[in-house]
Amino acid sequence: MAKDKKLVEEITSMDVDFAQWYTDVVKKAELMVYSSVKGCMIFKPAGYALWENIQHELDRRFKETGVENVYLPMFIPESLLQREKDHVEGFAPEVAWVTQGGLNDLQERLCVRPTSETLFCDFYKDEIHSYRDLPKVYNQWCSVVRWEKETRPFLRSREFLWQEGHTAHATAEEAEERTQQMLNLYADFCEEVLAMPVIRGRKTDKEKFAGAEATYTIEALMHDGKALQSGTSHNFGDGFAKAFGIQYTDKDNKLKYVHQTSWGMTTRLIGALIMVHGDDSGLVLPPAIAPVQVDVIPIMQHKEGVLDKANELTARLKAAGLRVKIDDTDKTPGWKFSEQEMRGIPVRVEMGPRDIEANQAVVVRRDNGEKITVSLDTIDNDIKDILAKMQVEMLERARAHREEHTYDAHNYDEFKSIVNSKPGFIRGMWCGDQACEDKIKEDTTATSRCMPFDQEPIGDTCVCCGKPAHKLVYWGKAY
Amino acid sequence: MAKDKKLVEEITSMDVDFAQWYTDVVKKAELMVYSSVKGCMIFKPAGYALWENIQHELDRRFKETGVENVYLPMFIPESLLQREKDHVEGFAPEVAWVTQGGLNDLQERLCVRPTSETLFCDFYKDEIHSYRDLPKVYNQWCSVVRWEKETRPFLRSREFLWQEGHTAHATAEEAEERTQQMLNLYADFCEEVLAMPVIRGRKTDKEKFAGAEATYTIEALMHDGKALQSGTSHNFGDGFAKAFGIQYTDKDNKLKYVHQTSWGMTTRLIGALIMVHGDDSGLVLPPAIAPVQVDVIPIMQHKEGVLDKANELTARLKAAGLRVKIDDTDKTPGWKFSEQEMRGIPVRVEMGPRDIEANQAVVVRRDNGEKITVSLDTIDNDIKDILAKMQVEMLERARAHREEHTYDAHNYDEFKSIVNSKPGFIRGMWCGDQACEDKIKEDTTATSRCMPFDQEPIGDTCVCCGKPAHKLVYWGKAY
Repeated sequence: MAKDKKLVEEITSMDVDFAQWYTDVVKKAELMVYSSVKGCMIFKPAGYALWENIQHELDRRFKETGVENVYLPMFIPESLLQREKDHVEGFAPEVAWVTQGGLNDLQERLCVRPTSETLFCDFYKDEIHSYRDLPKVYNQWCSVVRWEKETRPFLRSREFLWQEGHTAHATAEEAEERTQQMLNLYADFCEEVLAMPVIRGRKTDKEKFAGAEATYTIEALMHDGKALQSGTSHNFGDGFAKAFGIQYTDKDNKLKYVHQTSWGMTTRLIGALIMVHGDDSGLVLPPAIAPVQVDVIPIMQHKEGVLDKANELTARLKAAGLRVKIDDTDKTPGWKFSEQEMRGIPVRVEMGPRDIEANQAVVVRRDNGEKITVSLDTIDNDIKDILAKMQVEMLERARAHREEHTYDAHNYDEFKSIVNSKPGFIRGMWCGDQACEDKIKEDTTATSRCMPFDQEPIGDTCVCCGKPAHKLVYWGKAY
Repeated sequence: MAKDKKLVEEITSMDVDFAQWYTDVVKKAELMVYSSVKGCMIFKPAGYALWENIQHELDRRFKETGVENVYLPMFIPESLLQREKDHVEGFAPEVAWVTQGGLNDLQERLCVRPTSETLFCDFYKDEIHSYRDLPKVYNQWCSVVRWEKETRPFLRSREFLWQEGHTAHATAEEAEERTQQMLNLYADFCEEVLAMPVIRGRKTDKEKFAGAEATYTIEALMHDGKALQSGTSHNFGDGFAKAFGIQYTDKDNKLKYVHQTSWGMTTRLIGALIMVHGDDSGLVLPPAIAPVQVDVIPIMQHKEGVLDKANELTARLKAAGLRVKIDDTDKTPGWKFSEQEMRGIPVRVEMGPRDIEANQAVVVRRDNGEKITVSLDTIDNDIKDILAKMQVEMLERARAHREEHTYDAHNYDEFKSIVNSKPGFIRGMWCGDQACEDKIKEDTTATSRCMPFDQEPIGDTCVCCGKPAHKLVYWGKAY
């Protein structure tokens, strides 16, 4: 293997410099390039195909729960953005403003949407009149803009792609149910499709979304021990409804405010995939999300019959419903192996003259390098089994990594010691006072990631101030 | 039927006021509403679902021809837009400008993309080095902004959704081939899926895209006799390549410029669907594109067993691969019929106690009102046959309408008489002088729609100036 490695340009080892490893991988796996627009990136085919697969699977799951897709304008008039006080304070400092249209100055500035709560509210106030018009469970797939100063591919850029669901309900209970339903949908998607385990929990008031009553989050642990917020779901109560006047006549003939939610997932999931599963040879993609699942690589392809047999196998695997490509370029097999590894294609199939003679091929798993000799009689089903097993084992491996990097801290000395020496999640009790969150962040740069739904207290005093505490919190440094 | 009509709010008759009919239909069929952002519209679920189906089918056809999807930023720095002279002149007057990001003024204005040729060129110049890097056949699905003064739902709005393909090739021949291939793909899609016949042809120099050597177009005729440009494909030659310096080393080791194309289709196709197939009862959707193909409407649903049987039928039709909904609300059947008609659902199935007793149901076609009694034993296949027949007949009907509204003009008097009295396409020979196009447009508001690929001369003198002419042109008033 060492010999083959030299065939592709080297990437920095993740243990030497994780940030540089990440940058190398996104470029060498051809996921993206920077554009000449500062802070904005270009999704290349291999990167965009990941997003298409994420979209496809999420959208299918959304629709099963009754979500309908819509599309709202990308511009928000300044006066509309300002309607809800907390919301505008949260977003106004980081939006891009359109001030000229055609050859004229606009009478009112328009911001390019950083998120669309205000537009959906403005839309719903005219659409919702009676309890018969509820619930509204709408979603849109679009790009949004936030004028960030520091950017990183997929993780933080001035423009990114996402979906944003916005719902309106007759009752507070129904809104809360939808908020949690979507968070659980996100979590299941991450675990089942991205093979990425997540902690499900609630954000503290300090960390919640601008304008929300409650924000729920899923938090994943990257390979370097830093946390990544991977999806959020917000319950707005009737705050936006009151700010925008979204009322309906209920069955009892009384005028009531609706209760609203919103929830979103973004292209940063691609960054998560890279940082949870990748290794020093490049990307490692879970089979369920990989644009190409099988790379057929003929060995000694100049020998008579090899290419024919490889093409035949490719066609057969495609017909079996697998996503397959054949690499019949004139590169050496070693080079092809390294490219397949760099791109994270879950398995490669090596097949040369001797394999063909023996009616077999060698399947090599990307995640653990295991080589499995399979009969050509059963190879289609064998590969499906190998991919299914790999999908399960990738989730288990990521979960084991997270468990190994989750630490309990019972007092502030312990906390600081862990935060300085052991990258990962730190579980610690919290008194509920924002001053402790602020202090922890200032002292250590770690933030409260969430209060997990699964609350098993590990003590009864705050990890920061030592006062009585009832809430278990996951803390960590985060992207 | 007249009785039922009153149950839904009335729409203006298309013969009385076609523009008002159109506005009524897009609103009453709940395809869109205006937003509080001037010139921008909201796609409601029924409207967006049409776009999703168009996307799905076009994207599938694209990928069969080797297209790969990417995503480029929505912002274009002013200096980049200005790189190709004709292009900037065409677009600069109608773009929106971002001048502030966060709390600061930007050093350089960014326009919100009206189209992305310049960004793709800037991208390609760094991606393409060798003949091995060619061709590049990329596409993106996104929204674009053009600061129009007059807007109409789906047909013209400040922001619209589209796809834009951008390709780079080693030779002029290959670029020309791709330009025509995509135009034919568009035309086949319109005819096979939207049941909308189109004229395939080339734009005159006056009407071609800003910066293109040649623009090919498909032109459809709406019910009111006005033309709608429904898709375009442009061959840029090496003009952009020279402006942006996109060169590759060929097999002969010489440095050469690439040849480029771009091609796009937009959400105005939804407007086309409405205006080609709609009638005074509302939308009429071709089965191949309809989000819901079958509306099951139980009759006397309070009678025992009716709802059960209707639900059973719905499940069975879904299992057969049809897109089905059941209307089990407490509205009257007549009201439900009118709603199904307004929304253009291709067929409804009426089933009441007597039908059930006779082991049958009544299938009613939306396009011609035909009522077909079918046995419950074979109803799934029967409905598939009915939908397939309807799809074919809708195309035939639209083609017959176009033929009836296509006129030949041999001189300017004939031309003016037709243009004033007979809405439709006018076929007329053209000398090739732009002065004649300008005169015709000024005198009549008709424009040259295209020089059809199928060139059968109908004379040898220009329909405007009477000088020798060799080119057949389709003329018409257009949206």
